[in-house]
Amino acid sequence: MQLLIANKNYSSWSMRPWLVLKAFDLPFEEVMIAFSAQPHGGEFKQKVLSINPNGKVPVLLDDGQMIWDSLAICEYLAEKFPQLPLWPADLALRIRARCISAEMHSGFMCLRSQCGMNIRADLKALGAKLWAEDEGLCKDVARIEQIWTSRPSLDRFLCGAFSIADAFYAPVVMRLKTYGLPVSDSAQRYMALMMAYPAVQQWVQSAVAEPMRIGYLEADR
Amino acid sequence: MQLLIANKNYSSWSMRPWLVLKAFDLPFEEVMIAFSAQPHGGEFKQKVLSINPNGKVPVLLDDGQMIWDSLAICEYLAEKFPQLPLWPADLALRIRARCISAEMHSGFMCLRSQCGMNIRADLKALGAKLWAEDEGLCKDVARIEQIWTSRPSLDRFLCGAFSIADAFYAPVVMRLKTYGLPVSDSAQRYMALMMAYPAVQQWVQSAVAEPMRIGYLEADR
Ligand SMILES: N[C@@H](CCC(=O)N[C@@H](CS)C(=O)NCC(=O)O)C(=O)O
Ligand SMILES: N[C@@H](CCC(=O)N[C@@H](CS)C(=O)NCC(=O)O)C(=O)O
Repeated sequence: MQLLIANKNYSSWSMRPWLVLKAFDLPFEEVMIAFSAQPHGGEFKQKVLSINPNGKVPVLLDDGQMIWDSLAICEYLAEKFPQLPLWPADLALRIRARCISAEMHSGFMCLRSQCGMNIRADLKALGAKLWAEDEGLCKDVARIEQIWTSRPSLDRFLCGAFSIADAFYAPVVMRLKTYGLPVSDSAQRYMALMMAYPAVQQWVQSAVAEPMRIGYLEADR
Repeated sequence: MQLLIANKNYSSWSMRPWLVLKAFDLPFEEVMIAFSAQPHGGEFKQKVLSINPNGKVPVLLDDGQMIWDSLAICEYLAEKFPQLPLWPADLALRIRARCISAEMHSGFMCLRSQCGMNIRADLKALGAKLWAEDEGLCKDVARIEQIWTSRPSLDRFLCGAFSIADAFYAPVVMRLKTYGLPVSDSAQRYMALMMAYPAVQQWVQSAVAEPMRIGYLEADR
């Protein structure tokens, strides 16, 4: 299997299937296509378009198949490795995992657009400003609190053991940290658990070590 | 099974699982919670919140489980009825179906926000204006063209027989019709096939017959 991703510091959608592959020890080759300086264009776009007509990453290449959306990639992997609990084995937990993952996939537009993922940055000042001014952002975070706080055990992940659902909320943890948004103790506990998880640590270390700085993805652009 | 939906004229997310249930002849009780005049509030919100903390429809209630996102509902149904091709049985087609459904779930924000679903309305004048002015909308429609045009057979649905993928693109067909956006012959053929599909016809007939007019969901608000 080959997983095409973009810069680890910025690419929230890439992070999800990468974490799933790492968390479940599935062997894969990682191919990083760095973002170009030109938004949605340049060499990045050319390279991705030569493989995926949608022009976006992540893309999984496996057995002659091309799978091009982070959620579809995770469903593909769950189907390919039915013996592994990529989704929780328990029906009620699996339903919860699928609902919160699909909800993340389709929503939280304010958080996404206002607080772009930028793992190595410290944007707490900007975060405080946004928090005071942007009602939509506060609503998004309130719903995330609700989802996180209703996890079955406060000492564990969103649906018990680490699953696809956590991979979908890992970029949110990064955003909340970078922008220093205020969250409850329960949410902080979840964030600490996430930050200590080996696959997440590996991603974060590579993100911080990346030399490229892409202007249009920086808040001080 | 009980499916909670909102007004058929307006609720694009409700349309998807409803079509899947009808298309595959799965018996269910439909519960319509009409939108209130007050955006995201009023009696609609109260009623939905009493069942689903997320405050949104569609919601599927089955066997003591609550499933609250249209894509998660479809995955739940696909898992519950493995003998039925809710997703195509062929692997490559199933991958395509999941990718285009997840892509629809997570994207096309311009089309969604500029061209709200309003089945009984004729908004061609507004559509022409948007088409001339809104680059994001044109890009969304171009990508939809690409997806529709790459269907395996031009006489059939997006992945052969009607599947979850078509349920996810049915609201797009409604939008393109209401706003009269210009599309290729191939796309028009797909739209005609969709409009002639019995489950779609049933939904459209009920939508047109609905007496309620919700101000904030009308373009001339
Ligand atoms: N729904 C897609 C979204 C993928 C996406 O938007 N990827 C970004 C990178 S994080 C991208 O490739 N953007 C490039 C562009 O839009 O030009 C998924 O879940 O994979
Ligand atoms: N991701 C959800 C989105 C559901 C959604 O946004 N539903 C709309 C109706 S079409 C809703 O309930 N809106 C009420 C509100 O936001 O107050 C899904 O796929 O089911």
